[in-house]
Amino acid sequence: MAASSSLTVSQSLVGRTRAHHGSTTTTHSDRLSLPGFSLSTLAGRGIKSSSSPSSLVVGSRKRVNSRSAVRAAAVETLDKTDTTLVENSINTIRFLAIDAVEKANSGHPGLPMGCAPMGHILYDEVMEYNPKNPKWFNRDRFVLSAGHGCMLQYALLHLAGYDSVKEEDLKSFRQWGSQTPGHPENFETPGVEVTTGPLGQGIANAVGLALAEKHLAARFNKPDCDIVDHYTYVILGDGCQMEGIANEACSLAGHWGLGKLIAFYDDNHISIDGDTDIAFTESVDTRFEGLGWHVIWVKNGNTGYDEIRAAIKEAKAVKDKPTLIKVTTTIGYGSPNKANSYSVHGSALGAKEVDATRKNLGWPYEPFHVPEDVKKHWSRHVPEGAALEAEWNAKFAEYEKKYKEEAAELKSLISGELPAGWDKALPTYTPESPADATRNLSQQCLNALAKVLPGLLGGSADLASSNMTLLKMYGDFQKDTPEERNVRFGVREHGMGAICNGIALHSPGLIPYCATFFVFTDYMRAAIRISALSEAGVIYVMTHDSIGLGEDGPTHQPIEHLASFRAMPNILMLRPADGNETAGAYKVAVLNKKRPSILALSRQKLPQLPGTSIEGVEKGGYIISDNSSGNKPDVILIGTGSELEISAKAADELRKEGKAVRVVSFVSWELFDEQSDAYKESVLPAAVSARVSIEAGTTFGWEKIVGSKGKAIGIDRFGASAPAGKIYKEFGITAEAVIAAAKSMLG
Amino acid sequence: MAASSSLTVSQSLVGRTRAHHGSTTTTHSDRLSLPGFSLSTLAGRGIKSSSSPSSLVVGSRKRVNSRSAVRAAAVETLDKTDTTLVENSINTIRFLAIDAVEKANSGHPGLPMGCAPMGHILYDEVMEYNPKNPKWFNRDRFVLSAGHGCMLQYALLHLAGYDSVKEEDLKSFRQWGSQTPGHPENFETPGVEVTTGPLGQGIANAVGLALAEKHLAARFNKPDCDIVDHYTYVILGDGCQMEGIANEACSLAGHWGLGKLIAFYDDNHISIDGDTDIAFTESVDTRFEGLGWHVIWVKNGNTGYDEIRAAIKEAKAVKDKPTLIKVTTTIGYGSPNKANSYSVHGSALGAKEVDATRKNLGWPYEPFHVPEDVKKHWSRHVPEGAALEAEWNAKFAEYEKKYKEEAAELKSLISGELPAGWDKALPTYTPESPADATRNLSQQCLNALAKVLPGLLGGSADLASSNMTLLKMYGDFQKDTPEERNVRFGVREHGMGAICNGIALHSPGLIPYCATFFVFTDYMRAAIRISALSEAGVIYVMTHDSIGLGEDGPTHQPIEHLASFRAMPNILMLRPADGNETAGAYKVAVLNKKRPSILALSRQKLPQLPGTSIEGVEKGGYIISDNSSGNKPDVILIGTGSELEISAKAADELRKEGKAVRVVSFVSWELFDEQSDAYKESVLPAAVSARVSIEAGTTFGWEKIVGSKGKAIGIDRFGASAPAGKIYKEFGITAEAVIAAAKSMLG
Repeated sequence: MAASSSLTVSQSLVGRTRAHHGSTTTTHSDRLSLPGFSLSTLAGRGIKSSSSPSSLVVGSRKRVNSRSAVRAAAVETLDKTDTTLVENSINTIRFLAIDAVEKANSGHPGLPMGCAPMGHILYDEVMEYNPKNPKWFNRDRFVLSAGHGCMLQYALLHLAGYDSVKEEDLKSFRQWGSQTPGHPENFETPGVEVTTGPLGQGIANAVGLALAEKHLAARFNKPDCDIVDHYTYVILGDGCQMEGIANEACSLAGHWGLGKLIAFYDDNHISIDGDTDIAFTESVDTRFEGLGWHVIWVKNGNTGYDEIRAAIKEAKAVKDKPTLIKVTTTIGYGSPNKANSYSVHGSALGAKEVDATRKNLGWPYEPFHVPEDVKKHWSRHVPEGAALEAEWNAKFAEYEKKYKEEAAELKSLISGELPAGWDKALPTYTPESPADATRNLSQQCLNALAKVLPGLLGGSADLASSNMTLLKMYGDFQKDTPEERNVRFGVREHGMGAICNGIALHSPGLIPYCATFFVFTDYMRAAIRISALSEAGVIYVMTHDSIGLGEDGPTHQPIEHLASFRAMPNILMLRPADGNETAGAYKVAVLNKKRPSILALSRQKLPQLPGTSIEGVEKGGYIISDNSSGNKPDVILIGTGSELEISAKAADELRKEGKAVRVVSFVSWELFDEQSDAYKESVLPAAVSARVSIEAGTTFGWEKIVGSKGKAIGIDRFGASAPAGKIYKEFGITAEAVIAAAKSMLG
Repeated sequence: MAASSSLTVSQSLVGRTRAHHGSTTTTHSDRLSLPGFSLSTLAGRGIKSSSSPSSLVVGSRKRVNSRSAVRAAAVETLDKTDTTLVENSINTIRFLAIDAVEKANSGHPGLPMGCAPMGHILYDEVMEYNPKNPKWFNRDRFVLSAGHGCMLQYALLHLAGYDSVKEEDLKSFRQWGSQTPGHPENFETPGVEVTTGPLGQGIANAVGLALAEKHLAARFNKPDCDIVDHYTYVILGDGCQMEGIANEACSLAGHWGLGKLIAFYDDNHISIDGDTDIAFTESVDTRFEGLGWHVIWVKNGNTGYDEIRAAIKEAKAVKDKPTLIKVTTTIGYGSPNKANSYSVHGSALGAKEVDATRKNLGWPYEPFHVPEDVKKHWSRHVPEGAALEAEWNAKFAEYEKKYKEEAAELKSLISGELPAGWDKALPTYTPESPADATRNLSQQCLNALAKVLPGLLGGSADLASSNMTLLKMYGDFQKDTPEERNVRFGVREHGMGAICNGIALHSPGLIPYCATFFVFTDYMRAAIRISALSEAGVIYVMTHDSIGLGEDGPTHQPIEHLASFRAMPNILMLRPADGNETAGAYKVAVLNKKRPSILALSRQKLPQLPGTSIEGVEKGGYIISDNSSGNKPDVILIGTGSELEISAKAADELRKEGKAVRVVSFVSWELFDEQSDAYKESVLPAAVSARVSIEAGTTFGWEKIVGSKGKAIGIDRFGASAPAGKIYKEFGITAEAVIAAAKSMLG
């Protein structure tokens, strides 16, 4: 009922001055002004100061480069012919999608057909990028959160001249080995920023990308030079809007005032099960106003190109809030019999309907054909992109002269190169060092690393004082202090993970970490999986990693979590036992930029154990003590994290009784798996079948390590609410149990 | 900015008629009218028609039973003395919480201190329940979504006379074996409806409880008898509000118009990391208006008892929308030095501050003391609760006379007793039956069961036509058709799971199922874990269970998911291979009311295999074919789900070469684990170490089954986008691979 009253509807071409947003200064981002300028061609571009208030136009049908100083000298007028050109371009996008899905007989044509106009305007008129260097640092970022519509993005990348999507790639859409998989994957297709498809992830990634931009801009921009300066655009659909993760991330985007985040909500009223009326009748506009966003409604997203342009203009003018542009479209626009129905969402149209759609939209061409006028029109993006990057490079050279230190730091963030000797900053410990919880030792590592790693930033989902994640030398990243590095995510684990994916994939040198209780990885598992799949080197700082957390009880006590992540591909599950191992875990985590790491850390105090080391951690499993010889211990005791201490204690007892006992720390199964067979044999000799593992978690999977004659001590039920010591005892996670198991094998 | 303008503030005691809500009929729920009636005592209650418009009062300081016909004959006036009594009661709640946390030196005193007023009003003045039968069907449900504040609920249950929380239970708060664990757990503490603590789950459970009430009321109520008729109350905090799951579930609650769901939002501005300003500045009110809720703001939740009462009255008057009552409170109210700070959230106050708080609130009593006047006042709830239940029982007897069939069905839903021979409805198949995807076979089972199980209802997260979950004989559960059984959850997996937990725990005979792609269990894992922990027998219908889904690619292809659920306690992970096994999986799922089941189902067609059976599934692992004798096969081939066919094919080839080959279907590890040693030996004899397993998922964990000399064939990397057959071949999930592995063992 309050839904429509408070909605801002932008239908006018004329850009409005939104005085109530309060920003009146003429800055680098104050670049939206007089309409009427015309399409620039690269050849004719000169260099002009970007601070000119009339230096660009968005909201007209002309494209003028906005942020760069590149400007048109030659003027090309977009008149009626140009409208035809725009429509041809939009229909090209539609039919590339239709044809690719048809050829694969698999895929989602509906979204590309409906979103082609906004896609065209973004990639052809608005966004700044360099097709031949998809990783150019200062590019605008685009995220297709509704990832099933990936043919939209592939068509756009193809038209724009990206090498990753040639005609043959479109023709091998969704086929083995192609660069055009069924959903956008950054690790397969240069030009794709993040991996989407699982709904809601993309918009949250985009919040991370926009956060990264705001943070880096605040750190590196100077009054005379905005060296970091790009927008983040997203297209999300009804599905994304329904997902809780989207609400979490968008609440943060509003809180942080991410003014350069512009999200297009493809409001097409159709989801897989039919009309959204059956499950989604909330007022999205009102909700986003509640979240602190600027909301615009484009009522005619199908052919209202100028409406879309005006909305972008308005969105850019609002500098202190992210903008949601609700674009009402028709899913499968152009298909006479399937448009506006769920049947066009996720299946090929079928030959007959493809023909009918060709007739309906007046498209006489063969499949995959790009008309010459469209090809010619888009061909400018390759030289223009090169010029944009060249211009930025020149700008950077100027910047470097004036701000040497900052330039060097920014360079390292762009390249991802770690400062020489950074790992020397990691603390080391001796057995005499005081006992401490690994969550506290983790904080020592984080704070040590913050001094040497310019890209380290992160925080917790409202558990900073429990997860021990605050960087003491920095303040909070907030709307008005975006240069700071402590990020306050609130109780939004899922959004947090996906935001960190966005940060990690913004620039190779950014190293985001995030934290909650280990059990609550369940809330963010979908985002963690995307970290692993998309090679986003996020560091997950997960404390309270077992029944050792005590009284909070079984809702808070992880049991199956270690196993569940050991089973996940391309992720490092690390469970350090003390200070040296925690430092080792951080070393591994920082070095694995293309593989996320999860650190499982204790709430409770643990002693500094003799024999632990950073180098040991790097091998995943290693011997911390051994009184055997000839690689023939009587028994091998294996522990991880807080239970390594128990293994060590049990070993002491057994050795008193004359046994030859080896104690192995098994901090990371994945790293151990990667060692040579010889090394593995040196730690776990095949001939020694007397093996006892102990870990305060499920025994699931441990047969691999202890073998069928070994014994895994663990917990295969839910935990309980009581003081930690009591729970350990009641559940038999004790040195006595290890000793008994060992003795039963030794006969 | 629109936040406050549209907010409905209720501060008046006088109930407003909210004409714009449109409901003007005088029905059973139209029971809020004239204030001024007085506290009923049970002894004086007569029987009077509940349709009288003046039959109850909420919004005065008097408690009059609302829904029951029990009415006061004796009138007791609550004057100034009574305000003192109310304050004493509220302070009793506060100090029981303070003292229990202090004794345990662990827990969360802040919320109970701030929410004691609303807690008192709910349990003493508003809610209908029977302390001596916490499972009385028609009770009002209460959910403490901010579960860390559990001492609030324990104190209330104690005062109300529940046997589960005696004084000694309060004194053993958070101790081993107590009924007062660190967070509310329905399986530990009668009177607790659901298990909370992980934030956001509780409000979503409450949506499920309210859905169940609306559904059952629509099915069973008659114009002359509202046999199903209760409210669902929730207290949630800032943490719950930040969680995406809460937004998902509340969007559905608004969509469904759950008018009898009344949520109290404890707006205390403090979360663990400090002031909510650091991460949570959205307008919750505006968001909830967008979600279609009625929103009320109680500005003084600390002492504004009448404001709280008036808000409840207003909430009840709004019948077509759920209500959010934002109650602004002070966390740790009463503590002179710690109130309104994060330090009172999750730690004991400490002896000194406890003393100061006692002084500040004028509380001269020893720890755990309940003053006599408070004890006397609350003592009426035991007889009153008994009378409420007796009255409802009498009503039910009347109902039963008139509506025999409905009464029998409702009885079975209340008791959870399954109809005799229900499992005969399950379809069976022969090898001649057509090949089909197990997702389709699952739909046949669901539709067969819907005819015989009155409590079966559920749906999908916007994938009904992919998950094949529609019950063809029913329509959609919607706002105006709540009697139907197809629930449309939208793309809200997490909310869906938690809503199903609420449905399952509403009544033993309700059997909720819910569905999405198997990989998206990642989105709802926290809710699935609560199903397992809280013994909620939800059936999770998870289709597209492997790389066999093909072109959608690695974002959609589960790899680690089977292992990750096998590692989770108290859950059945079932992966049927064909029609008989799918039927068997449903039989097991329905019978396991206190253990949730996950059915992993194929997108692709699978043949009906010789040897499969419902009975086999019940044993978890069983032989489907064998040409060996004396329990001594040369090799055992083990498969699950879509790969059982591959094992069978490989066996055929090997037998042609004269080998004695056993094929074992390993549909559920958990069920196999529960069989006798003799049975296990009959399927997997210890002497036979030549074992090959094949499963299109991670090999993690399979060492337990195949042993160190066996071979597990699977996929330990992410999948790929291509047609399914191609992916199987490229990843080596083939009969050839099984044959090669078997031969390598046979020498």
